[in-house]
Amino acid sequence: MKTRVALLSALSLWLVLTFAGCTNNPTPAPTAGQPAATAAVDPLPSWNDGPAKQAILDFVKTTTDKSSPKFVAPEDRIATFDQDGTMWVEQPIYSQVLFAFDRVAEMAPQHPEWKTKMPFKAIVTGDKEAMAKFTMKDIEALFAVTSTGMTADEFPPIVKDWMATAKHPKFDKPYPQMVYQPMLEVMKYLRDNGYRTYIVTGGGQDFVRAYAQPVYGIAPGQIVGSALDTKYEYNRDGQGVLMRDPKLLLNNNFAGKAEDIYLFIGKHPKAAFGNSTGDQQMLEYTQAGGGASLEMLVLHDDSTREYAYGPATGLPDSKVGTFTQALYDEAKAKGWTVISMKNDWKQIFAWEK
Amino acid sequence: MKTRVALLSALSLWLVLTFAGCTNNPTPAPTAGQPAATAAVDPLPSWNDGPAKQAILDFVKTTTDKSSPKFVAPEDRIATFDQDGTMWVEQPIYSQVLFAFDRVAEMAPQHPEWKTKMPFKAIVTGDKEAMAKFTMKDIEALFAVTSTGMTADEFPPIVKDWMATAKHPKFDKPYPQMVYQPMLEVMKYLRDNGYRTYIVTGGGQDFVRAYAQPVYGIAPGQIVGSALDTKYEYNRDGQGVLMRDPKLLLNNNFAGKAEDIYLFIGKHPKAAFGNSTGDQQMLEYTQAGGGASLEMLVLHDDSTREYAYGPATGLPDSKVGTFTQALYDEAKAKGWTVISMKNDWKQIFAWEK
Repeated sequence: MKTRVALLSALSLWLVLTFAGCTNNPTPAPTAGQPAATAAVDPLPSWNDGPAKQAILDFVKTTTDKSSPKFVAPEDRIATFDQDGTMWVEQPIYSQVLFAFDRVAEMAPQHPEWKTKMPFKAIVTGDKEAMAKFTMKDIEALFAVTSTGMTADEFPPIVKDWMATAKHPKFDKPYPQMVYQPMLEVMKYLRDNGYRTYIVTGGGQDFVRAYAQPVYGIAPGQIVGSALDTKYEYNRDGQGVLMRDPKLLLNNNFAGKAEDIYLFIGKHPKAAFGNSTGDQQMLEYTQAGGGASLEMLVLHDDSTREYAYGPATGLPDSKVGTFTQALYDEAKAKGWTVISMKNDWKQIFAWEK
Repeated sequence: MKTRVALLSALSLWLVLTFAGCTNNPTPAPTAGQPAATAAVDPLPSWNDGPAKQAILDFVKTTTDKSSPKFVAPEDRIATFDQDGTMWVEQPIYSQVLFAFDRVAEMAPQHPEWKTKMPFKAIVTGDKEAMAKFTMKDIEALFAVTSTGMTADEFPPIVKDWMATAKHPKFDKPYPQMVYQPMLEVMKYLRDNGYRTYIVTGGGQDFVRAYAQPVYGIAPGQIVGSALDTKYEYNRDGQGVLMRDPKLLLNNNFAGKAEDIYLFIGKHPKAAFGNSTGDQQMLEYTQAGGGASLEMLVLHDDSTREYAYGPATGLPDSKVGTFTQALYDEAKAKGWTVISMKNDWKQIFAWEK
């Protein structure tokens, strides 16, 4: 246990040193001049007045007003949200990657062979230089050993435990507190107006499902993500169990998001929220459904309160969450709304209060 | 068009001659002696009193009563239903196979090569002997040409048109009228008590989704079925579309049902309804969730009002819907309830009234 804590601390330190470069300003000044009467019923209190907030308000109004030509029938009210970088912090690296690092550290005593086998060796020996060079194949190898070879029922408690204890390397708070308060307000506002909300994530479906109900108020069946195969087998007691298999069944990124929305939901969403090229097809597919629709992209341009990254910010691109200039141009051309974290969000995290 | 009608008539005739062997008795005598007071509030009026009806009533009562040790939290109230043979008639052959036959006949004028190419030739030339020998591979070849090579949005209207016009070869009524009234009552009763109802079918997911809302009151996202892959592509206008691909992504039968329930719903159901070995793992997986659960199998033992088939009836097995003696024995051993169509269902179809 001591070894584990030491390893985790080393990891956190490395992540902070490698990726972080700014401090957190938890209490932004409230925007002055907002009328008290409006504030009392404002469904989006963490948003500053502006085109992004207005786009959301207009969309809900026009699609739920029966006299509107853009009215959307209740059964078609579907809204999809990317997770990493859209609903919560994705820097310095995806939470699920940190989870895999921590799992390797925790499992290492039972795997002496990892001391000499990459990519495990890098984590076990705390070789930050090697870890910084991890490829997606390395990460997948870590996912395979840390989240398979067990039953489907055995995995969620492991994720829940991690979510309750692991802390973000920069903000030093558990991940459930890394959720963007303005986006939770959008989710609730849409649900209050008859929309079914889905997470559509490139991350692991089962990983997100393990905490989505308390964190987002969304049931497992409305989490669509990258998914491993499972195999139905009989255990020693003759009981049927689903074994988690390392084979990737669904890669829910880019075109995969549109394909899996169709597979799981069977309809074009009416609203979609993302923050990177991995969400491009989801937004296109939403708009292609015709009628009223809302497409929004979160731009990380707040180096003070969160992070700033990606070419569209004029800053170097990040390892994760690629908001390219091409995506920015497509958004402008197609009437999608870019959300500036810096300008549109009055408050980013609930604990800033 | 004339050719098509002639072909369809020939097909219907062939199906009747090949598979059917009984007449329909549309007006069974109502069961006498049921108290009027009970009938007024009976949620399952098409069911005769007996162990099957009682099992459903007891399950709902015990899982929705907060003081019951077997209370099920609202978010865990999930009920899954097989379709063919459980929700509607699967004899003489699955509706989707008939759909494929009719599509081939309709598409034949644009495919002169089918006149000499099996399995299409058999349908185009009305060769009943060859059609009777179709293998699953033949059927899959028919599915591939009749339901792929188009966008995902183009497929449902074709199915809807067919559902509105095609008639069951024995009962001479459109397929939506082939639904079992007692099962619709179970679905509604469960929904009225907070259960989310899903169809979990070996049939095509997109096929069932095209009519599930009006027929079962179930949204596309709660239909889990065998699914083809789709590919996200850009059309001539630069718009993203999902093209239907002949590759089978999910084979939702046998173990596939348990695996896909996990993939789509992420929880063990609390109630599951089937009628064949294809549903065995779904029922096992339901029971494996622990706590209160309800597992039911429809036994087709009514040759007068519907069909009788399968070893458990003492009659020869059918081409479809295998209710084996082994499944019957497993049901008895595990406390699953076998529904006798003959004895448990007062009325089978809504139009019998």
